[in-house]
Amino acid sequence: MAVRVTESALCGEGVVTGTAEFQRWYAERVRNDVAEVRRIPLSALEGWETVPGTGEIAHRSGRFFTVEGLDVRMPDGPVPNWNQPIINQPEIGILGILAREFDGVLHFLMQAKNEPGNHNGVQLSPTVQATRSNYMRVHGGGRVPYLEYFREASRYRVLADVLQSEQGSWFNRKRNRNIVVEVDGDIEVLDGFCWLTLGQLHGLLAIDDVVNMDARTVLACLPFAGPGPAEALSPGGGPGDAVVRSCDSDVGGVHPLTEIQSWVTEARARTELRTRTMPLNEVKGWTRSEYAISHEDGLYFDIMAVDVKAGSREVGQWTQPMIEPRGIGIVAFLVTRIDGVLHVLARPDTRPGYADAIEFGPTVQCTPGNYAPGPPPAHLRFLQSVLEAEPDRVLFDTVLSEEGGRFYHAQNRYMAVETDADPRLEDSDFRWVTLHQLARLLRHSHYLNVEARSLVACLHSLIGRS
Amino acid sequence: MAVRVTESALCGEGVVTGTAEFQRWYAERVRNDVAEVRRIPLSALEGWETVPGTGEIAHRSGRFFTVEGLDVRMPDGPVPNWNQPIINQPEIGILGILAREFDGVLHFLMQAKNEPGNHNGVQLSPTVQATRSNYMRVHGGGRVPYLEYFREASRYRVLADVLQSEQGSWFNRKRNRNIVVEVDGDIEVLDGFCWLTLGQLHGLLAIDDVVNMDARTVLACLPFAGPGPAEALSPGGGPGDAVVRSCDSDVGGVHPLTEIQSWVTEARARTELRTRTMPLNEVKGWTRSEYAISHEDGLYFDIMAVDVKAGSREVGQWTQPMIEPRGIGIVAFLVTRIDGVLHVLARPDTRPGYADAIEFGPTVQCTPGNYAPGPPPAHLRFLQSVLEAEPDRVLFDTVLSEEGGRFYHAQNRYMAVETDADPRLEDSDFRWVTLHQLARLLRHSHYLNVEARSLVACLHSLIGRS
Repeated sequence: MAVRVTESALCGEGVVTGTAEFQRWYAERVRNDVAEVRRIPLSALEGWETVPGTGEIAHRSGRFFTVEGLDVRMPDGPVPNWNQPIINQPEIGILGILAREFDGVLHFLMQAKNEPGNHNGVQLSPTVQATRSNYMRVHGGGRVPYLEYFREASRYRVLADVLQSEQGSWFNRKRNRNIVVEVDGDIEVLDGFCWLTLGQLHGLLAIDDVVNMDARTVLACLPFAGPGPAEALSPGGGPGDAVVRSCDSDVGGVHPLTEIQSWVTEARARTELRTRTMPLNEVKGWTRSEYAISHEDGLYFDIMAVDVKAGSREVGQWTQPMIEPRGIGIVAFLVTRIDGVLHVLARPDTRPGYADAIEFGPTVQCTPGNYAPGPPPAHLRFLQSVLEAEPDRVLFDTVLSEEGGRFYHAQNRYMAVETDADPRLEDSDFRWVTLHQLARLLRHSHYLNVEARSLVACLHSLIGRS
Repeated sequence: MAVRVTESALCGEGVVTGTAEFQRWYAERVRNDVAEVRRIPLSALEGWETVPGTGEIAHRSGRFFTVEGLDVRMPDGPVPNWNQPIINQPEIGILGILAREFDGVLHFLMQAKNEPGNHNGVQLSPTVQATRSNYMRVHGGGRVPYLEYFREASRYRVLADVLQSEQGSWFNRKRNRNIVVEVDGDIEVLDGFCWLTLGQLHGLLAIDDVVNMDARTVLACLPFAGPGPAEALSPGGGPGDAVVRSCDSDVGGVHPLTEIQSWVTEARARTELRTRTMPLNEVKGWTRSEYAISHEDGLYFDIMAVDVKAGSREVGQWTQPMIEPRGIGIVAFLVTRIDGVLHVLARPDTRPGYADAIEFGPTVQCTPGNYAPGPPPAHLRFLQSVLEAEPDRVLFDTVLSEEGGRFYHAQNRYMAVETDADPRLEDSDFRWVTLHQLARLLRHSHYLNVEARSLVACLHSLIGRS
């Protein structure tokens, strides 16, 4: 399977949709699928209520999601106790991509989808991107196309199927089902959908704000690692070959996987993290004004509300609360080549919203403005190394959006920066791991956070780069 | 590694401690390590308080554990909403077994340990069985022997190291670190400890209430599966050979592991489970009397309190709340041989205390008296098949205790019952899986519940059985 995925990654031109044709189609979608998104007062939310007593913002149906308060205690952390608003969305949605071979090459059915939080409107999404309320049609929308392939996945060839977490500082234990299903028969291509090779998707990943977060996390869960793909390579080569070797499970890494797993077990056992939901109107350090619930120092994020008038969505007009982050984040892996094999510097990332307290995160993950001067915590330690890297060491550098259904204009600059293989970079906070080790862990929940998964998809896009 | 574990399992006699010598030693421990455990009124708990307002029972230090209320909503379950008391123990403790080769055979350092909830006092425990409060010496006890091997595990050979859940109806998201470390050098054997082979431990598993729950769950996490162990077998053979083949990762199962994982992903995505802690004095259907918090129908369990006077424990006298279940449970795997390979009938088990809502449980897991007449839920469906099986179909049948540090006289009858390989037994609630598939999943958290892990250890004990 790893070989088939690699072959699709090497096809920069599609059999079904030529790249020029894609560009025409995509430009047309961008032009025609326009939504009007307007910031409104929190009190103007329709169908949502501020719950008396707690101040929670909840949908009157009891479905969708709730904005709640969270009390977080981490006695050994840099901040031992804080309060914050957080989104509670207990339903598990489906992020599904349909795959099919055309002329022996795997293609993926992608959707051009407008989300209210996308600053540029349309982005490329999975075939199905639907919450449970959404596909159970709680708000009376139309049926979700292609849903049946994922709800009855056992009838098809399942390439990936795993629950994965999303932003652990903004969501309380939210997960989505990341699923890729391969089919054989004819599939009608509906308006707004098109078949692309992995190579085409990889090309689009290098353009700011085209491939959305949901597509990236599903692509990261593809079985891109396994035995075989590095067999045909000559020694040496560019970053692309180092990625292929890193995906080959017959090629070793500097640490065995059991050691990496023991390292995360130890970190979880050591880390005390206690969270408790609390009334939103009692969260310390946050205040509610007409248009937003904001931190008193103007940091982190706001809870705000939008009114959406959309042409192509199942429901033409609605209002909803969203999270609007303050500033653009930096999300970066330091990478290195050890014996020609790409390794990434992984870090145990602790967030209140992870069901298991810790998942592996990128080397650097922060919004620089949020931090006070002083000794940097682990997730900031290599920020300067990343920002000041020589241009020829920067293997990937693209601004990408986070989920446009919940986050308003949320963007991160995703980077992969090469450094020398220095074992001194490893301490209790960092380890060099290969992509096939990450792929092994990605078959399970609770191992890679959503930013690391995005970066895995970005690193995979280096295949073919000389 | 699987071969070394299998070899130790085939050694019914130890190199270090002969079985006769073990029996003398164990009888002496049972005789001399006596504790006086007395039921006391809840109000007589010392160092614990009933929190005003909520009625929670909490230790005054803020450590150890808390008895809280839990509101559970499972809209599609047989009971869509209920309240119950539950233990909240956010700390992650260590259940660690030290391993070492003697004359080429792996031995495991076991401890004879008295726990207040054990109806028979002493049972065999892991080398280290300690909560974090315990080993950080919150209550001022002595140091925990052999702790350093597990806290600095990366200096040794780690055979297993994974967080595993415990009883999901009694604990809210509790996990312990299950860890096995192999050492080379000389180890001083302290009073109360002894080296045993896996074969010796397996012999003891067939005796009621000797090998405690903590030992069983750690043994289940041993790397007993892998390539190789079945190579030397002739076709046919008894249940022991079927177990060895089931542990051999080169021998296939009826379902590929990816299909099993997709099945649990689908079950998790489908199951709506929402839990919320609530004041203990407001849990519906439960009342507090002088000696217990009990369900109004006399079902499930009681929260009660004990006074303990122990000779050998770090602290000589203490009081604590405990859970006392009503009745002895039945925990059973239906098993079958398919092409000579043992398969067990696994079931997705939903409990409010699992961090991930669902883990694989045994085919049958219940306390029969707790259920009303009517169509049985999945975990009861095969109860009669198990209880009425012909004696020659019963491969394992032993009463074993649950954790004696939190549960008072909690016992389950653990059974493995052979049945014909009938594919009709499989529906959305059941799948045939092999032991090496379970072993693969056991390297990760959130897959096998503690009862299933106990049964895996019991099934492994059939190795050598003709």
